[in-house]
This record gives sequence, C-alpha cells and structure tokens, in this order.
Amino acid sequence: MKVAIIGLGHIGSSIAQGLRKRGVAEYVVGVDRNVEHQEKALEVGTVDEVLELRAAIEKSDVIVLSIPVDATKELLPTILDLLTDGQLVIDVGSTKQKICEAVHSHPNRRKYVSTHPIAGTEKFGPEAGIADLFNDKKVVICEQDLSGPEAVRKVVSLYKVLGAELVYMNPVEHDMHLAYISHLSHITSFSLALSVLEAEKDEKQIFQFSGSGFASTARLAKSSPEMWSPVFLENKEPILSVLDQYIEKLEAFRNNIRNENREGLLNCMTEANEIRDILDGKFKEIKEERR
Amino acid sequence: MKVAIIGLGHIGSSIAQGLRKRGVAEYVVGVDRNVEHQEKALEVGTVDEVLELRAAIEKSDVIVLSIPVDATKELLPTILDLLTDGQLVIDVGSTKQKICEAVHSHPNRRKYVSTHPIAGTEKFGPEAGIADLFNDKKVVICEQDLSGPEAVRKVVSLYKVLGAELVYMNPVEHDMHLAYISHLSHITSFSLALSVLEAEKDEKQIFQFSGSGFASTARLAKSSPEMWSPVFLENKEPILSVLDQYIEKLEAFRNNIRNENREGLLNCMTEANEIRDILDGKFKEIKEERR
Repeated sequence: MKVAIIGLGHIGSSIAQGLRKRGVAEYVVGVDRNVEHQEKALEVGTVDEVLELRAAIEKSDVIVLSIPVDATKELLPTILDLLTDGQLVIDVGSTKQKICEAVHSHPNRRKYVSTHPIAGTEKFGPEAGIADLFNDKKVVICEQDLSGPEAVRKVVSLYKVLGAELVYMNPVEHDMHLAYISHLSHITSFSLALSVLEAEKDEKQIFQFSGSGFASTARLAKSSPEMWSPVFLENKEPILSVLDQYIEKLEAFRNNIRNENREGLLNCMTEANEIRDILDGKFKEIKEERR
Repeated sequence: MKVAIIGLGHIGSSIAQGLRKRGVAEYVVGVDRNVEHQEKALEVGTVDEVLELRAAIEKSDVIVLSIPVDATKELLPTILDLLTDGQLVIDVGSTKQKICEAVHSHPNRRKYVSTHPIAGTEKFGPEAGIADLFNDKKVVICEQDLSGPEAVRKVVSLYKVLGAELVYMNPVEHDMHLAYISHLSHITSFSLALSVLEAEKDEKQIFQFSGSGFASTARLAKSSPEMWSPVFLENKEPILSVLDQYIEKLEAFRNNIRNENREGLLNCMTEANEIRDILDGKFKEIKEERR
C-alpha cells in the first residue's frame, strides 16, 4: 500500500513510521510546505519521497491529512475532488464538526473517513514521530455511515494494525467531550505556564520547584501554538462554555480560601478525588460489569 | 540513630524507609493517630514500633514531623518543649512562614530545622512510602541561622544520604514560590477534575479520552484533601494573589477565543512555550554558565 502523509508533524510522522514498521506501507510520500520538515522526514526515513500535493495524491492509495484543523477544513474538499476509485483520505484533526460539515455534501464524501487518534504528546515536527504512538490508544471515527463501507473497513484495519481501539461517535459529541477533556487541559496548562513565567523572573526557581507538581500540570504548555490555536477557534462554543465552568470552580476555591472555609475546601477536593478511579481505569461501568 | 516519624503518611514513611535502607536509622518509632496507619506501617516494616508522642520523642535522636501544616504549627512548640540536648526536630511542611513564626522565640528554637523536601506524588498513606523518593530532589531549608549549627549539619547530612540537594531560602520567599509553582498547580488540577466530572456524567468517556492530556493535568486532583486544605489556608495571601493572576490569563484565552483573535492566541501560547527550556532544565542561567 502506498501512503501519502500531508503534514509531516508528530501525528503524520507517527502514522507513517507505524505503518512502515508493521510492513503495511511499502511506500510513503510526504507533503509539507516547510522545507526543513521535508528534509528532516527524508533524513530520518519517515518518507521515501517528498512531492507536491497533486503528485503525491496521484501516487497513493491512502492519503493521511495531518495538518492543523483549519487547514484541514480548507484542503479536504480539494483532495476529495482529486480522488479516483480505490483511493481514500482520512484526517486526524482534534475537532470534527466543522471538518465534517465542509465535505458533508461532497460527491466523493464516501472516500473520506473522519478520524481522531487520541494520542500525541506535547512534541511536534517530523523528528517527533513515534512508530508505536497509537498502541493501546483510542481512535474516534465520526460519521462512519457517510463513508463507504470499504473505506471504513480499510481505515479500521490500518488503525488496528497500529494497535489502536476504535470508538464511534458523532462530531458534535466528539467536539464536546474533547473540549472538556483535552482542549480545556491545554488552556489550563498554557495559562499556568504564563502565570508562573510572569511571576517568577528567576527561572532557576521554577526549575528547582517543578518537581512539586508543576512539571506535570504545565507539560502541555510546551505544545504547538500553530496546531492549537485553530483547535480552539474551530471548537469555539464548546470551549467557551467549558472555560466558564472551569473559572467558576477556581472561583469556588478562591472564595473558600478567602473565607477560610475549611469544610468548603475539603468538599471540593473530596469531590475532585473521584477522578482517581477514572484515571486508574476503574470507572463504575467496568466495576459493575465485573460483578 | 533512632528516628521518630510523627505522621506515617507518604513523606514520613518515605523518609523512614530511605534512612533505614541506607543504614542510617537503626530504629524507627512511629506516631500516628490513625490506627490503620499504625498497623500498615508496622506491617510493611516502615517502623519498628508505634508509640505515643512523648514516649516516641523520649526514645529518639531525630524527630520528623510529617503531618498537615496546620497541625505542625500547633504541635511543634510542644515537641520543642520536650527536647533535651542532642535531640532535634524537623518538619517537612509545604508552607514555612507560619510554622517558623510559631516557634520563632521558643527557647529550644535551635533544636528545630525547618525543611521542605520538594518531592512527593499524589499518593498518600503508609503504603505510599518510597525509599528513593528524595533522590535528585531539592530540599529547602529555611531560617538555618536560627537553628543550631550542629542540628543543621546533621539534617543536611541526612537529606544528602537520601540523595537530595539542599537549597536555602527565607520562609516568605519559599511560600511565594511554592504558591506559584506548586499550590496553584494543585488548585488548577482539582478544578479541572471537578469541571470534567460535573460535565461528563459518563465516566467511560473521561477514561477513553484521558490520553489527550487530561491524565497529566488532572493527576494532582488525586491528592489528599486533608493535607492540602491546610496548605491553602496557611498560605492564603500568596495563593489568592496567584489565583487572581491565573484567572486573568484564562480570561485572556477566553477573550481571544470569543473574539476569534488568532494572533492573540498565538502570542499567549508562544509566550507560554518558554516553559519548555525550563522544564527541560535548560534555563538561561545554566546556558550562560556554560558559555
């Protein structure tokens, strides 16, 4: 199978390396506007060749669109225009609703499978490719009924080869869940880093004390602005509502501290502690199934 | 050396196990009001014996006070009252100003060394003891001039045996730095967990998507309410000021998203990205030293 990776970042490079390592992709063509990314991808062997978009699509069975979500929304209809029978395109964007809308009535809609691998780190660029990135991770597929069954079957099998588990969901649900669980986490992390950087002129102090929990909560603040700003804008309404609720929780902490309300603080934290079982994978549904 | 551990939680147990593993503590006496903790500590071998406070102090050379910071502030003067020549007490609390104030004029102040090991995880209880917890970690010592030189020397050598590096700082500075770098991280994490738990009635969704950054940013929400609520209250003023600044940053994100201000978002995140070098230990001072 010949695979085109459009956007040689962390996710695109990881898919390329994963499929190649498992012998599924016999030839990988890369497309990227960034010349340094092109050279790096050739150097580390992520791609066999770098081509322009049209030439890359023409040469490939499966096209992976792994660029920021706003650019995905713009480019996807053009890619679908170019596809012939037997070819298919997937995107891997962190928002799904606007991308799905952009191609909803496209005559080639059946050649597109809308996916979101819930994987990735704060790293980016072609040197951040990890062949096993998707192992034991979830991949969401949206609007599978609008994709051709053969296309869905092929994409499912590719993700399974990479070790991932598939989850099906509509784009609105997807974007709402991700606003809470992923997008909000990134905004809290960026804001935390900004507060600390502004307050702590002496970077050595930040470093010295980062073992106190900060390294973990601020890790996502290393993430790529170019990738995340389109996510925040494409998923504007869910994120705004989520942010308002989050600020309310912070204000509850602030008021409890200001009023020295020890009970109030204990209640907030005891409630928050319920996240333990979930993070440890011991959520109620599983517990109940086991009974 | 005989060591008394008052408070058989994560930090107290880790100190006991670390000193025992390295052959420094030949006998460890535990004190804890919680009978389950007493039994667990005896069972896992963290302590040789559980005693009442006075009996434990009488039997020990070094007393480690590892209980919540408000209780530390209350109990420390009583412990100092009981110490005779050659004995010393340390606390390990996450706030230092009010604890130091509480014993500032105590006749036995020289037998007290004020410490804060910047280590610990979201785990707690005697089963969470980790003998190597302090390896390569920082330990802050405050007001070392008010401690006897011999007491400081002994405490420094104990922490060095555990693999830690010592940092000296006054209590006000300490509490301000920690408000930013540690206490704020905990509040953001607790609030994030609360928001997500409230919004996501289906715990399976949280679990499925926790690989998207949430697991890392919400980890600290597993922490002990009984330990953290006194920290927030003892360090009230710095934390309130830090929280206000943090909420301002969040509001900047919210406004940029609401106004679809892409440039504004990019600027916020690019600035936040400066945390990368710091988290990776490549802060300017080190860079400059190497030139």
